[in-house]
Amino acid sequence: MKVAVVMGSKSDLDTVKPAVDILKEFGAEVEVRVISAHRTPEAAREFAVKAAKNKIEIIIAAAGKAAHLAGVLAASTTLPVIGIPVKSSFEDGLDSLLSTVQMPNGIPVATVAVNGAENAGLLALRILSIKYAALRDQLKQYAEKLRSKTEADDAAVCKEFNS
Amino acid sequence: MKVAVVMGSKSDLDTVKPAVDILKEFGAEVEVRVISAHRTPEAAREFAVKAAKNKIEIIIAAAGKAAHLAGVLAASTTLPVIGIPVKSSFEDGLDSLLSTVQMPNGIPVATVAVNGAENAGLLALRILSIKYAALRDQLKQYAEKLRSKTEADDAAVCKEFNS
Amino acid sequence: MKVAVVMGSKSDLDTVKPAVDILKEFGAEVEVRVISAHRTPEAAREFAVKAAKNKIEIIIAAAGKAAHLAGVLAASTTLPVIGIPVKSSFEDGLDSLLSTVQMPNGIPVATVAVNGAENAGLLALRILSIKYAALRDQLKQYAEKLRSKTEADDAAVCKEFNS
Amino acid sequence: MKVAVVMGSKSDLDTVKPAVDILKEFGAEVEVRVISAHRTPEAAREFAVKAAKNKIEIIIAAAGKAAHLAGVLAASTTLPVIGIPVKSSFEDGLDSLLSTVQMPNGIPVATVAVNGAENAGLLALRILSIKYAALRDQLKQYAEKLRSKTEADDAAVCKEFNS
Amino acid sequence: MKVAVVMGSKSDLDTVKPAVDILKEFGAEVEVRVISAHRTPEAAREFAVKAAKNKIEIIIAAAGKAAHLAGVLAASTTLPVIGIPVKSSFEDGLDSLLSTVQMPNGIPVATVAVNGAENAGLLALRILSIKYAALRDQLKQYAEKLRSKTEADDAAVCKEFNS
Amino acid sequence: MKVAVVMGSKSDLDTVKPAVDILKEFGAEVEVRVISAHRTPEAAREFAVKAAKNKIEIIIAAAGKAAHLAGVLAASTTLPVIGIPVKSSFEDGLDSLLSTVQMPNGIPVATVAVNGAENAGLLALRILSIKYAALRDQLKQYAEKLRSKTEADDAAVCKEFNS
Amino acid sequence: MKVAVVMGSKSDLDTVKPAVDILKEFGAEVEVRVISAHRTPEAAREFAVKAAKNKIEIIIAAAGKAAHLAGVLAASTTLPVIGIPVKSSFEDGLDSLLSTVQMPNGIPVATVAVNGAENAGLLALRILSIKYAALRDQLKQYAEKLRSKTEADDAAVCKEFNS
Amino acid sequence: MKVAVVMGSKSDLDTVKPAVDILKEFGAEVEVRVISAHRTPEAAREFAVKAAKNKIEIIIAAAGKAAHLAGVLAASTTLPVIGIPVKSSFEDGLDSLLSTVQMPNGIPVATVAVNGAENAGLLALRILSIKYAALRDQLKQYAEKLRSKTEADDAAVCKEFNS
Repeated sequence: MKVAVVMGSKSDLDTVKPAVDILKEFGAEVEVRVISAHRTPEAAREFAVKAAKNKIEIIIAAAGKAAHLAGVLAASTTLPVIGIPVKSSFEDGLDSLLSTVQMPNGIPVATVAVNGAENAGLLALRILSIKYAALRDQLKQYAEKLRSKTEADDAAVCKEFNS
Repeated sequence: MKVAVVMGSKSDLDTVKPAVDILKEFGAEVEVRVISAHRTPEAAREFAVKAAKNKIEIIIAAAGKAAHLAGVLAASTTLPVIGIPVKSSFEDGLDSLLSTVQMPNGIPVATVAVNGAENAGLLALRILSIKYAALRDQLKQYAEKLRSKTEADDAAVCKEFNS
Repeated sequence: MKVAVVMGSKSDLDTVKPAVDILKEFGAEVEVRVISAHRTPEAAREFAVKAAKNKIEIIIAAAGKAAHLAGVLAASTTLPVIGIPVKSSFEDGLDSLLSTVQMPNGIPVATVAVNGAENAGLLALRILSIKYAALRDQLKQYAEKLRSKTEADDAAVCKEFNS
Repeated sequence: MKVAVVMGSKSDLDTVKPAVDILKEFGAEVEVRVISAHRTPEAAREFAVKAAKNKIEIIIAAAGKAAHLAGVLAASTTLPVIGIPVKSSFEDGLDSLLSTVQMPNGIPVATVAVNGAENAGLLALRILSIKYAALRDQLKQYAEKLRSKTEADDAAVCKEFNS
Repeated sequence: MKVAVVMGSKSDLDTVKPAVDILKEFGAEVEVRVISAHRTPEAAREFAVKAAKNKIEIIIAAAGKAAHLAGVLAASTTLPVIGIPVKSSFEDGLDSLLSTVQMPNGIPVATVAVNGAENAGLLALRILSIKYAALRDQLKQYAEKLRSKTEADDAAVCKEFNS
Repeated sequence: MKVAVVMGSKSDLDTVKPAVDILKEFGAEVEVRVISAHRTPEAAREFAVKAAKNKIEIIIAAAGKAAHLAGVLAASTTLPVIGIPVKSSFEDGLDSLLSTVQMPNGIPVATVAVNGAENAGLLALRILSIKYAALRDQLKQYAEKLRSKTEADDAAVCKEFNS
Repeated sequence: MKVAVVMGSKSDLDTVKPAVDILKEFGAEVEVRVISAHRTPEAAREFAVKAAKNKIEIIIAAAGKAAHLAGVLAASTTLPVIGIPVKSSFEDGLDSLLSTVQMPNGIPVATVAVNGAENAGLLALRILSIKYAALRDQLKQYAEKLRSKTEADDAAVCKEFNS
Repeated sequence: MKVAVVMGSKSDLDTVKPAVDILKEFGAEVEVRVISAHRTPEAAREFAVKAAKNKIEIIIAAAGKAAHLAGVLAASTTLPVIGIPVKSSFEDGLDSLLSTVQMPNGIPVATVAVNGAENAGLLALRILSIKYAALRDQLKQYAEKLRSKTEADDAAVCKEFNS
């Protein structure tokens, strides 16, 4: 299991970190990269073209503003590409969101919420779980953990307010 | 290869049809359903819980306005869920888009463009191609077809304008 | 008189607190809960299905981002459901607002302003006052208090500027 | 059971009609009125002040653009006021929606979707059902009808696509 | 020359202060008031109805969120009403702006920029200058002062960068 | 009484017509002009500079898209300038609205609703009524007419629905 | 003088046509192309890399939705790139506009209005006029023509309304 | 090579500084000015009319809110005008962006991103490079520098995460 996590700028590192963390937590190999659709267009193309050959199974791409990275990578590979719109200084990343999600017919990008890196990682794991059956139980346990955490919060709030 | 295409209302059928068509064209089995997060909440939950057992590998969910369908299904399965925001009568589906893509941490929805059913189908195929290697060549041929079509358009325009 | 105040995440507690406070101030019993449409979908459904049996007369539901909680609860009860869109990090909660208010026909959610918890509580009290006549006078006194406060502010400003 | 349905302009009649219809279908008495916060401000105030005395239990108010009607009525009564933002010629009624839902603390308006008259009627019925127990069964039957309709749509689509 | 400056909440005082200051600087009498369309609707109506009799010639009204104040006052007077949309916590006052400017036919509100109190005062002075000729020279001098200030800034920048 | 109604393009004529009509109906002299801030900048400046000398008392300016006309005219006169944002092909004139209303400090533009020409005319008449007392009664009669019309609509609707 | 006019899809031809026309009218050689950042990414890159060598001096690029074309071309050339955001089915091309104009530092795209093809052509001519002095007079004559047209419209309107 | 960088207010100086810096770094002469379309309209017009005579080849104009500066300058010159929408206090400069980019046919403004001063400078340099061939190599070196910087970031991230 190998997932690439590509960011358009090193300054996006903190934003994409939760994707890397959750992937590693689930045992996936992660290749983290800084590649820009605008500053290193050749590297972007080369990366996408060779990704499958390099055993990468999913590409997660994070970029902000006129966020072309996910779309540009998706144009040169048939691997699934997940796009993370990075929060920008314009309307909390509305530019990033629309530049990522509104892809024309033929070249899909699986878009998550603005700054939704953790969900990008989880989406990659759901995708991988189609092939790697072991992940399914891990994902179920993760869902259980979320459930337990919410139930504990509920219990705490109930104790404070409802008794 | 089996993909479910679920719509929140039968009136979304024309909108989701391109997803069904492209999936069938690539040889995937498609289960088309009308299930509403609001009008048939039990059916929605039951469908999601049993989806994996029913050999469904990916769920595509299309809904409009306060579009909860994809998120609600994603909450009860670990399968990857692709959300199609259906164009509504409010700002061309801004409500559908935000209700689908802005999922909280823990429950990802792979969102495509407003009314982006064809891309939802293609995204499902890219995802399936991780497991079903034969799809990779089909996807490459599809990309080639897109390329050829654009090149032919380019040739036609060049002939008309540049000679 | 019993009102449930449900939040999608414990982190919403400060936001919903004014609803709880005003309800208690008026003598209503309040059940405060943390239930998530996405992390505890079964609990959400069960809570909504049993709410009427548990003597709950109104449900106030607060959630942010792709805020499905109010809609999901409304789908499994015939009690009136009031939705509080919680301010998110995207355009001050535009996503929460549209996900809450733009409900499809058949399943209404009574939506108040973004972070409008106090008004959610007051709306619940106005609703209860149809049945519990004593509340009407309390609501009138509350309106009087608002009026007096504004008149006092007016007097203070008049004194400072207009004398 | 008596509900007032007030519109700011007679041109909103077609838009509010579904609220009137559903209320009558459930057996509620409906008083339909044309009252403008701007053109007949005194009538608006008088109507709101006397509404409770006139046996009205809920006010539904529909207006477009800078839609002040619901808020203005809510300021002069303690009855619950439901606001229907009417679709305007500006961004599909974004002006109507924000003018209706973003009420300041103290004066709540229960807002439904843009042009959501049917849901406004259903919300009024849910509210009335707290007091009038007979409505609860009617609302359940209505929900059943929605469910049956969706299930029939599902069956039709299944037959067409999945056999 | 008498202008009323009305705010919906005392918390708007700092925002409307520049309107008061510029009006006084030009020699206009200013009546500053706190009146709420929602919390003191009767006072609002009474104020508007009697404004002309009280020698007020222009009303400036500042309010935020679902900002009904200017429209409500304009509905009960034939004096010109200037609306200041107060910056709110939702999209920098988009709600206030649309609630103020998008008035239906028949009841105009002269809207200035969000938090544009100084311009509201200047607009009032331009309006008064139609009747009070002496203001015209004052307004010209004010424009000159703006010009001089900008020219001085230009000179300073030129000196720093262009020499 | 003389008001100038200036449009940025002759294609705006139908949009501004209601302003001209209402002004004439009230007995004001109207000078209708086509002047563009972009195509005839010198004419725009000259018009504004000489407007007061030419007995014009108020300027109404209508323009669309990056609507600079009202602001440009306001910069070269101390007369009150009313801006009509003309509905454009982009988000129903959001560009026109913001370009007109969001004026920087020092140069106010009295902005009405998108395509709000009738209100622009009425606002001009309210302004003129400060000086020309006879207009006050006309404006009151106009308000009465609006009231009567709404009351007649109310009566018709009451007859149809409430008897 | 040679300008390339590139569109992302042949369906954009009518939209970009005014750019081609105005350029030819001024005597520039125009190379019209259909090249897609997503369907023909290699062609896009090759076109941009060789554009200068092919005597192209300016590239005009038109695309809609997640409009990456202009940015992608600008990343592989140092020629000035003008972007035309094509009106899409989402909020009149807000997606196209933001995807084109919000470019990150380092790679500029000169963006014109949504569907602003004529202005894209005129901008290219203004740019070329720095080098090709003869264009300056042509541009002045064009400005004169605009002025004359507006003055004639003004005269016609004056005749109809002001005599 | 001479470029004018004009700002509407001295407070925009920090925002436009990156444009001045990059232009000087590339050896262009820069004339920095403070000129306001609203406070110094005559200076604005005079500046634009004489710009070409004063050897200015490109005008960069930065302004915020109802940002008319770039459009007003473009109306009185045939030089290329680059507009920088300055981030305002309303929706991060949406007003500035639309006021700058949505120019009507006939008068183009080359718009860059909100606060995109560095790109405005680079765009000016790309434009100048058509005439001044020496700039082409400088621009290529600049692109190389961007590429190297991104590659170094990539290497650093690879070392940290992928080894």
